[in-house]
Amino acid sequence: MGRTSDARGKILAAAQSLMEVRGYSSLGVAEICKTAGVPKGSFYYFFESKEALALAVIDEHWAAERSDWTGVLNGDAEPLERLRQLFEATEARQRAGMESCGTVSGCMFGNLSLEMSNQAEAVRKRLQEIFETQVEMVESVVAEAVGRGEATVTDTRAAARSVVAQLEGQVLFAKLYNNPAQLSALWANSLALLGVRASPVPAVT
Amino acid sequence: MGRTSDARGKILAAAQSLMEVRGYSSLGVAEICKTAGVPKGSFYYFFESKEALALAVIDEHWAAERSDWTGVLNGDAEPLERLRQLFEATEARQRAGMESCGTVSGCMFGNLSLEMSNQAEAVRKRLQEIFETQVEMVESVVAEAVGRGEATVTDTRAAARSVVAQLEGQVLFAKLYNNPAQLSALWANSLALLGVRASPVPAVT
Repeated sequence: MGRTSDARGKILAAAQSLMEVRGYSSLGVAEICKTAGVPKGSFYYFFESKEALALAVIDEHWAAERSDWTGVLNGDAEPLERLRQLFEATEARQRAGMESCGTVSGCMFGNLSLEMSNQAEAVRKRLQEIFETQVEMVESVVAEAVGRGEATVTDTRAAARSVVAQLEGQVLFAKLYNNPAQLSALWANSLALLGVRASPVPAVT
Repeated sequence: MGRTSDARGKILAAAQSLMEVRGYSSLGVAEICKTAGVPKGSFYYFFESKEALALAVIDEHWAAERSDWTGVLNGDAEPLERLRQLFEATEARQRAGMESCGTVSGCMFGNLSLEMSNQAEAVRKRLQEIFETQVEMVESVVAEAVGRGEATVTDTRAAARSVVAQLEGQVLFAKLYNNPAQLSALWANSLALLGVRASPVPAVT
């Protein structure tokens, strides 16, 4: 079983790296298997369709990213400082991707939302669940900040959704301009969106 | 010449409607010509490549959208009210698209930024120019509002870029949730991003 699960992992890794650069639609099963170095015949042993593979790639990517988000947002720092750390980590991840691949690949979930949500209902639903969870995670920090009198928004869910929308919009610009520094605006933008009147933590330098 | 320019127009219209639903990568020249009802052989008479067609579709789409933006942002209303009208028009356009096609197709420039910017430098450059122009157009309104003491941001360019990023992020959610009402958050978000302390115009109902 070691060999077969290894082949599944190779297909997943190849699909993830191809999807980060080229998206989903232009990929073929043959190309994915060739990149993975596994026989094409074995693909359907592991995945019933290319869409099933896309869902598995999304799930694996989200498991890793969710763990990163949880580590930062459930940390010991003050609530707004944790949000700042999340943006810093996001910028650092895009910068590392650019340094290793030459291009900012952006957010896989944002990329697939625009590319696939009108074409694959199962993918749309999965991406909705992921963004809902992201909004919930941010909301929990926003609610803490409001409880401490550091943020003034009344609808914490809507405010958290606007912060995640701002993140996706700025990641789009980081990808378009191939420049992770676009993300440095996120912190000040989020303070404004959350109705923070004065920065309670040191400004980013 | 009437017939040939008509064929070019049919190819452009078919490509635009296919790209709105399915993006660029998965389209083939044969499919575009079939949808347009023109012989495949005539494609390369009008366009030297599929990428050249994509640029022509982008230019045509932007010419129309730019005219809409100019009409609203250069209008007679007070500056922030013009911004509110821009968001209302954006939401109305997405709603009309959903009513005619069944799905929110989102922003063609945002869609293509995420799908193509790492794969086609000419497209990346054209999309950068379009977003720069959008930011300039919004900035001009923001600067007016700041001059009237209605907005408090100091870096009007950065503030305008954040408003456009917020627009793209909320359009992404509108597409993902197939719900144009996501865009109703844009007005309050933009007031916050522009440092408007109290709404100078009636709130959206």
